[in-house]
Amino acid sequence: MGKNILVAHGGGPTAVINCSLQGVVEAARASGQVDKIYAACFGAEGILAGDLIDLTDVPASTIARLGHTPASAIGSCRRKLGEADYPTVLETLKKFDIDCFFYNGGNDSMDTCSKVNELAKKEGLDVRVIGIPKTMDNDLDLTDHCPGFGSAARYAALSAAELALDASGLPIHVVVLELMGRNAGWVTAASALAGRLTDCQVLTYLPEVLVDEDKMLADIERAYARGKGLLVTVSEGICGLDGKPLADTGIVDGFGHTVPGGTAQHITDQIIQKLGLKSRAEKPGLLGRASIPYVSQVDREEAYAVGRFAVESALAGESGYMVAIDAVRKPAYSSSLSLVPLDKVANVEKKFPLEWIVDGNQIADGFFDYAMPLMGEDFPEYALLRR
Amino acid sequence: MGKNILVAHGGGPTAVINCSLQGVVEAARASGQVDKIYAACFGAEGILAGDLIDLTDVPASTIARLGHTPASAIGSCRRKLGEADYPTVLETLKKFDIDCFFYNGGNDSMDTCSKVNELAKKEGLDVRVIGIPKTMDNDLDLTDHCPGFGSAARYAALSAAELALDASGLPIHVVVLELMGRNAGWVTAASALAGRLTDCQVLTYLPEVLVDEDKMLADIERAYARGKGLLVTVSEGICGLDGKPLADTGIVDGFGHTVPGGTAQHITDQIIQKLGLKSRAEKPGLLGRASIPYVSQVDREEAYAVGRFAVESALAGESGYMVAIDAVRKPAYSSSLSLVPLDKVANVEKKFPLEWIVDGNQIADGFFDYAMPLMGEDFPEYALLRR
Repeated sequence: MGKNILVAHGGGPTAVINCSLQGVVEAARASGQVDKIYAACFGAEGILAGDLIDLTDVPASTIARLGHTPASAIGSCRRKLGEADYPTVLETLKKFDIDCFFYNGGNDSMDTCSKVNELAKKEGLDVRVIGIPKTMDNDLDLTDHCPGFGSAARYAALSAAELALDASGLPIHVVVLELMGRNAGWVTAASALAGRLTDCQVLTYLPEVLVDEDKMLADIERAYARGKGLLVTVSEGICGLDGKPLADTGIVDGFGHTVPGGTAQHITDQIIQKLGLKSRAEKPGLLGRASIPYVSQVDREEAYAVGRFAVESALAGESGYMVAIDAVRKPAYSSSLSLVPLDKVANVEKKFPLEWIVDGNQIADGFFDYAMPLMGEDFPEYALLRR
Repeated sequence: MGKNILVAHGGGPTAVINCSLQGVVEAARASGQVDKIYAACFGAEGILAGDLIDLTDVPASTIARLGHTPASAIGSCRRKLGEADYPTVLETLKKFDIDCFFYNGGNDSMDTCSKVNELAKKEGLDVRVIGIPKTMDNDLDLTDHCPGFGSAARYAALSAAELALDASGLPIHVVVLELMGRNAGWVTAASALAGRLTDCQVLTYLPEVLVDEDKMLADIERAYARGKGLLVTVSEGICGLDGKPLADTGIVDGFGHTVPGGTAQHITDQIIQKLGLKSRAEKPGLLGRASIPYVSQVDREEAYAVGRFAVESALAGESGYMVAIDAVRKPAYSSSLSLVPLDKVANVEKKFPLEWIVDGNQIADGFFDYAMPLMGEDFPEYALLRR
């Protein structure tokens, strides 16, 4: 008798999370060892409610389209499972006779994975548990990088380059671009590539360094005065010298949390009021994790591969691991996959190396050596004819 | 002896303005009748300063890359020429011995074109003047549509669809998307396509209809309660029942104008405060006119064609016209080019038909019949597996 498998998504999606789902489904079908392929409808919520989607007979042509579908095709949620939830999770696994469980997510999801694995073992339930990494923030440990990061970085880099060309081709204002990444600057750092792809000046501010607003404004004024346009790129979560976010909406939500947002608009307001320059703020926000035309082909292929590898590993009898990506960059980029223990990954945050932040607003070559292969190798070469 | 030609950009760029420039240069080269190809460095500013870029010997491979370069490759400016400037314009035309002058822009630029044409005639200067249309706003009259609109519309439609999938795949908040178009809703209307490409509910608000904020919030509350996620798309310039913009930054710039902006953020704030729902605002802003990966192939080809046609028309002796696009949509889309008198186009604004706005927040089929062929025919078919 064949195996039954269950895959679930946790937390915010990436532009390639469905590529991993495609990899899971196609590897399961190719194995000849799988009877039923289930997906949790809206992540942990679906697991707790016993609401699974049966993907077993979904046409191959639909599964193939997953590679170009943004967000979570099976639904995700933000619910973090607590101790009290785990018995219900095990019940669902028993009810559907699940042999292999795949949880595709970030830090929290790997923690969940780890606990399900331990609990199942303790209760003598024969379920193999494998974590599939995913986060645009790139903050998972023990893997060279996370599926989803390359595409978010490519979005940040190319969008910033396009805005930079707009700013230098019609130099009437300072353009400020806000990018996602509340605590980690990995994605925003990629936007600094705009300074290398265009003739525009680019200043980049990451959440890893507290920002002296007066110095920031002085730097902006001096750079803009040189002419040729200026783009300022910022993480949504950058903080001032007092350690508090430069901006929030001032609104408290139903959960008692102050709603963040408006960092770029805040800086734009300061540029207008204090420097007397024109300025406008742009915030593509969630588009940075949802945009399909900017997807990195390398990221797409790796996201697919980690999904396949998870299934192949579980069917080979492995359990309690996350799939990790190991990468070689010289003489050319290549990557391979391995397994790392879930309990070593869970709840550890990989930090952006501070030595890659130069003078507070420039990004060092080291970052680009690391990140450019992940963004895909096909970078545009623009035709600039103006002086 | 061959002709000398001059091409200039006016106002804000589109994603395909450089395609028209490519068309101008390649048609001039192919004609065998052109000696010198000049471009005004930063538009009217370059013309007034006599600062022209000599494109005559720029390699063909660089010119070919224009088709994938956003913003203005030769530079543009917002300066509107006044009566006092025209003698200086004629001086530059004389100084560089210009036989054909091409101005690539929107309403204001066509007005400039028309005046240069009349003045040159009056002064006995043998200069042929042809306007090349360009505006993402699609508000030029006497042409079926404007180069630049199809790509801006495609950006709005596909970005909105991607955000809609994010909103329905992780339905934790109302997502509000702000799009460019202060007075004209053409581009924002295209975002309503998201409701047809995805499983998410979409409400769309254009500047052509005054918005009753209480009704808007009630509509948002009702739609969100139905589940499945909700995306609200708005023009940056929508106004309340009092005829005033729903939001501005409250900041007065150096020119005494109140700085617009923040419409989506304002609506998001209202949703959080008055409805107690989570919400976030996104504003890709200038990316809507600068993004190359979302360019419509139809738009790219037409933008190129109008540039070529302008040169061919001038070399054939025509002057005082703008290139217009005539389109047929049934049984299949095709377009052809013609010339319309500059003085009939200048300063006329093509309005979005009110009958295409249904119930204040839905867009009628008529608009999609009109606009979809311009956005390119290759629309994504997403794989949605969730219930």
